[in-house]
This record gives sequence, structure tokens and C-alpha cells, in this order.
Amino acid sequence: MNNAALTAGGRLAERILDKLAEATTDAPGITRVAYGPGERFAHDLVRREAEKLGAVARTDAAGNLYLTLNGRDPDLPAIVIGSHLDSVAHGGNFDGAAGVVAGLAVMAELAGQGIRLPRDLIVLATRAEEAVWFPLSYPGSQAALGLLDPQALKAKRSDSGRTLADHMLEEGFDPDAVQRGVPGIDVNRIAAFVEVHIEQGPRLVAAGAPVGIVTGIAGGFRYVDAKCLGAYAHSGAEPRFARHDSVLGFADLVASLEAEWNALERDGHEATITFGRVQSDPTQHGGSRVLGELGFTLDVRSAEATVLDRIENRLQAIFAEVGTNRGVTFEKGPRFTWEPATMSPTLIAKLDRAATELRMPAPHVPSGAGHDAATFAGAGVPTAMLFVRNENGSHNPYEAMEIADLDQAIRLLSRFVTDFDKDQP
Amino acid sequence: MNNAALTAGGRLAERILDKLAEATTDAPGITRVAYGPGERFAHDLVRREAEKLGAVARTDAAGNLYLTLNGRDPDLPAIVIGSHLDSVAHGGNFDGAAGVVAGLAVMAELAGQGIRLPRDLIVLATRAEEAVWFPLSYPGSQAALGLLDPQALKAKRSDSGRTLADHMLEEGFDPDAVQRGVPGIDVNRIAAFVEVHIEQGPRLVAAGAPVGIVTGIAGGFRYVDAKCLGAYAHSGAEPRFARHDSVLGFADLVASLEAEWNALERDGHEATITFGRVQSDPTQHGGSRVLGELGFTLDVRSAEATVLDRIENRLQAIFAEVGTNRGVTFEKGPRFTWEPATMSPTLIAKLDRAATELRMPAPHVPSGAGHDAATFAGAGVPTAMLFVRNENGSHNPYEAMEIADLDQAIRLLSRFVTDFDKDQP
Repeated sequence: MNNAALTAGGRLAERILDKLAEATTDAPGITRVAYGPGERFAHDLVRREAEKLGAVARTDAAGNLYLTLNGRDPDLPAIVIGSHLDSVAHGGNFDGAAGVVAGLAVMAELAGQGIRLPRDLIVLATRAEEAVWFPLSYPGSQAALGLLDPQALKAKRSDSGRTLADHMLEEGFDPDAVQRGVPGIDVNRIAAFVEVHIEQGPRLVAAGAPVGIVTGIAGGFRYVDAKCLGAYAHSGAEPRFARHDSVLGFADLVASLEAEWNALERDGHEATITFGRVQSDPTQHGGSRVLGELGFTLDVRSAEATVLDRIENRLQAIFAEVGTNRGVTFEKGPRFTWEPATMSPTLIAKLDRAATELRMPAPHVPSGAGHDAATFAGAGVPTAMLFVRNENGSHNPYEAMEIADLDQAIRLLSRFVTDFDKDQP
Repeated sequence: MNNAALTAGGRLAERILDKLAEATTDAPGITRVAYGPGERFAHDLVRREAEKLGAVARTDAAGNLYLTLNGRDPDLPAIVIGSHLDSVAHGGNFDGAAGVVAGLAVMAELAGQGIRLPRDLIVLATRAEEAVWFPLSYPGSQAALGLLDPQALKAKRSDSGRTLADHMLEEGFDPDAVQRGVPGIDVNRIAAFVEVHIEQGPRLVAAGAPVGIVTGIAGGFRYVDAKCLGAYAHSGAEPRFARHDSVLGFADLVASLEAEWNALERDGHEATITFGRVQSDPTQHGGSRVLGELGFTLDVRSAEATVLDRIENRLQAIFAEVGTNRGVTFEKGPRFTWEPATMSPTLIAKLDRAATELRMPAPHVPSGAGHDAATFAGAGVPTAMLFVRNENGSHNPYEAMEIADLDQAIRLLSRFVTDFDKDQP
């Protein structure tokens, strides 16, 4: 589309995203390591851009960045628009960054139209949202609310092997204060938290809509280092009766869990079940081996806590059944969980109204992936999310969000914040 | 058992095997890389020991070692007892070496009893039998017969990345002569080839027999770098309908091939089907990915060529069926094949007779794994194999052959060679 057709906010967003991509390119794609140089560059860039718009910048003990455009009444709790600025390795430019930049664009729209809101508008750029760096769920936004488990500070970054506390210190922040639970912002001073994010599955692409309003964020559990253990043997020499083949055990596990998935869907539930890594031991495997060990990850998600329980229970039964049938055992390893998060019906209604007024189709969609918004919803803050249409998923170099679609989200969000304190119909 | 109960040959075998283990230990286990220092040490050691027994040593262009104890009549074709001296990485001490050492032990028995055979007895120590080093089937014994495909000289060693020709040159041999097909021994000058080898599956352990007589060597085919290709996506965000999950495709392949295996056994056939490596891409996989690619090896073996054809045909059909059902494709990559080899009924009868005379139980067993003996059988040389009881399989540090069992094979083989030219009953 013609760049001139964008809002002023949309043009700003495009410019900032282009700068970000240029500075953090790591072919293929871009890399912004949590507490690494790419994330640091992004935080510095959005801080400078926000200050140009009249916002006041501060960071908290964990390095989360708060960019505040003061409202008329300092007693009113703020509207916070936030997302993260790190990315996976060789990821796309939009996952996370688009949400922070959308917040700046809303500030630009307000400034351009000379609007001062009744209450503070805070754009929050969190840290370390991508779990690929630290095996944690949203440590940045958790620290922002003073909720980070002190043990989490010992988690090691996957590329450096150094702890979260170490990396915070290196970037000039204060892990001791994080450990004491010193929050960056008081939950009671937040009227609404809104996160804009690119969609990560093709629902809006399929629906032909530029923007969607998120109904809830799936919870889930993940086994990050599970193993099917059998016995190594020579493929030609080991008779079938004597085998303990971990590949056959794993294939049975996959088939049995898929049967459970089918049963859940027949019962009217939604879930996803995914094996994101499947790996034999390179020091042991080979063309003529019967594999004695197969490592895997298992990721299960659903917006319904009861569905997660049902799958977990079935999983344990499958481990036992397959173990007996195949002469293998399953080693579960660590299990991470994250709770489902419900979006605020009040905020969804406000977003619906804004969309209607703008004659903008904005279908309701679920979020299968986790987001910083889940931290705020979990802490009792009224929370909403907007998805922006995006092809090819996220966490890869081929993210394909159109700035014209982000511009629609910026328009919707601008209307949402300007109408926030108007009388409801 | 008491060492004094061993034959003189058995005591020699024990001493040589101990020296070999000591010199090529690479914890856990031992490593004798093909055309590497461990194999070189082993060749030098057995050469010296054979010379002490009065054998004449020579090597061929590929570095195979011929240790000849001259017989009375130089016109008679020789009896050749052979195996290899390389090992897999962190393997056991007995796979290969036990067979060469058994040949030396037979020489020691003949020398100790003052027996001179009618015909030459050659102990042959081949090179590079373990396919883990070069992706080839028995290049050493093939070169011994002048049958090595010249292209094979370009094959690269897995650890060094350098070619077979390079490694031959480095060890002082003559790859040009190998390329021209200059044999180390004329097949018409071999009356019998016999290979002693530890069993690699627990058939003799199960039967309670120290030695077995091999009926045939399975042939097979192997896909060494096959892939199931789908599409990478975010595990939380990609709806089920949009997924192309390579893990589900692979699990279907495993289940479908196993169903075929069951059908074959119901029809009275024997085969093995093994996935020896299963591996997602470490630069792409992760807890939150839907896997777009899963690499694997597939190894299929049977003593019946028609069974191999049946499985190959079914495999191609499964690739197509699973591809359609799962929205994935299979990339087959290179395919290696090796022919089944039949053991000589005449030699089996001679071994049976020797066992009967010695009152030694020696059941008939199949060989699922390939051996140098297959090269000789394939070239029309009357060929036989003896298996020695061994727990825990081979290609691992836990090979557990008892010297007392090897001693039984030495006794059987000594009787076989001394009776070889006697009138049959």
C-alpha cells in the first residue's frame, strides 16, 4: 500500500521496525538475544523515540523499560501497552517488537492530534520473553510485577550458560532487588494492560481480517528433556524378540497421544500436542544401531485447565502402557507449566466498540502461544490482546506482517485509549 | 575357567587380545579406526605373532594382511581364515579381532602338534570392515579380491573427512593399484574362506552353546540420510488443520513398516527393520516448534532377497500414503544395498562333522549382520562362518565373549583344517 495512506503512527512504526531489522539482522532472519546486544539496541532505540514524543523513560531492577506519557490526573491508574523486544535466534522482526512499536505509534497519534489522556499511558518494553533463552515463562514481566521466583535468577541462558542474574548485572540492572520482589510497577496502578502481537497461526489470514481481538491465552505444560529409554543393539544381529527399541516406544507414544487428541476434539475441546525436538544421541546413533535412547520435548496447550489435566493423566498412563508393551521406560525430566489466562470481558467489549465505530472487522481469536499479557492477567490486571494478521507464523525469518495491518491495530488501539474514560453506552 | 584348561592356541589368543585391548583402549571401550593408528597397531601385532609361528607375511595394495603357513603341495588352493581388525568408536575388543586371532591360534595348534597341512593356510586380516568409518560394504575384502568399485576410493572417512584413497596412501599402500583392480589373492586359489566372529545377538547365549555354525548372512538395504519434510510452525499458534508435522509423519511410517514386518512374520519370513538415527535439526528444533523436518536412517535386513524387495515396495507405498495423509513428503537420500550371502553346504557339513567328532554342540544360526565372509561368498568362494557365544551384542564396550568359548571355536576350526583333505565318510 501507499505509505502516505498510513497514519502518522503507522509511518513511525514502519521506520522504527526498519531500523530494528537493519541493526539486528542475523541471516537468515534477525536475532535479539534476551539481555544481549540486540535487545539492548532495541530498548535504546524505543527509549529515544518515546522521549521525542514527550514520554518519560525509566527502567526497573530487571531492565524492563517504562515510557510514560503523563495524563491529566496522576491519581488514576495507567493504561499500559506492552510487549517484548527480544527474539528467538534467526527469528522475525515483528514478534514482540511490533507490539512495543504499536504503543509508540499510539503516543504519536495522540501527540499529532494534541490529545492529552485523563490518565497516564505507559508503553512497557519487557525483557526476556522468548523462552528459548531462559527456560522460564516471562521472567521480564514477572519481575516487573515483583513476582519472579528468586530461583529463576539462577536459570542459565542457553547460549552463554550464564545465569539470568549475571546477565541482568552485566546490562547494569539489579538482580538483588528483583530477588527481593521489588516491582517496577504496582498492579493496583494499572487500569488495563493491552498487548499487540502478530498472530502466530494463520487464523486472521484465513478470515481475511487485519486485526483480531484475543479471547484468552492457552495454558500448557512442557517436558523439555524427556527420553524413551530402551537398549542399544546391533540392527542386524539383535533378534526382534530381544529388542528394546526406543524408536518404536516413541512412535507408540505419538500415536496414543494423537488418539487422545482426537477424542478431546470429538468431545468439543481444543488443545495442541507437539513434539518440538526428537533426537537420538549423536555419540551413539548410526545406521546399524537399534536405538537405546530417544530424547524429545512434548508441548501441550489448551485454554481449558481441565483439558490439560486430562492429557497429563492420559500421558502417564501411556508411558506405563508403552513401557510394558515395548520393554522401554520413559524418563520425564523437568516439567514446566503455565496457566491459561482469560482476557478481560470489559476490555474486549471496549475493543469491540472501537472496532465497530471504525467499521473495522476484528474477529475474536484464541491465542495458543503464551505472552507477557498472561503475567498481567494472572496478577488480576484487566488485560486484553490484539493480534495482527501475519503469514508464515512467528519465530522464523519469514514472518510477513504488513505495516498496513499493524496500522489498523494502531488505529483501533488509539480509539480504545482515547475512548477509555468516556461514558459507556 | 582355569587358563590351563585352554588349548595352546586359546592361551595365545587370550594374550594377543589382551595386548590389543591395552593398546587401543578409548574409554569407554576400544577404538581402532579403519586405516588409523589402532588398526595399524593391530596389523603389526598379528604380523609379528604369525611370523613367530613360521608364517610368511605380505600385504596387498589396500593394506590387507596375508599370513601364510605353507602347505606341502603349492598347487592346492589355500584355506583362508579371515576377519577384520578395525572397530567402531568406543566398541568392544572382540568384533573382528577375535576372528583373526582365532586363525593365529589354529596356526599355533598346528605348530604345537607338528602338523603340516597339505595346502597353504592363510590368515587374512582385512581392512576397514566397519561401515561407520567409510559408508561402504567391506571395502577391504573387496579390494583383496580386486572387486572394489573405483568410486569407493573417493568415499570419505567419517572422522577425518579425507578419502579412502588418501588414507591408504598415508598408511603406505597403493590406491592406484586398488583402482586398477589388482587383487591381493586370486579367488581361484582359495579352497575355502572361513570367518570366526562373535555373535551379535543373543542366540547362542539363549541356546547355551559356545559356538554356532552360520547358515547364511542377511542382505539388506539402508537409507542413511532420509528425511520426513513438513513445515516448521509455532506449537501454540499453528492450528491443527494447518500443520504439516514431520513427527506425526515419521510415527506413521514407523507404525506402517512395523505392520508390514508383522505380516512378513505371519507369512513365515524373517527380517529386521531398524531406525538407527532419528534427529531433528538442532538449529531449528525447540520446545515450541512444530517440526518441519525429521531426519532418520532406515536399515532393513533379510536373508531372502524377495523379502527385501517386498519391504522396499511397501516402503515406497507408505511414503506416498503418509505423505498424502499428513501433508508431508519423504526425501529418501542415498540408498546402500548389500546382497544376502549363502554359506557353503559342503563346508557346513565339514564343520558339522568336526563338531560331532569333538562332541561339541554347534547349532546352526543365521547372521543378521554383514561380514567380510559375504564378499568371498559373493565371489563364488566356498565360505563358512563360526559364531562364538557373546553377551551384550557387539559394537559396544560391553561385548562379553569368554576366551573359553573362543577356545571351543579354535578347537573346532583346528579339526576342520586338519580334516579338510581327509576322505569324507
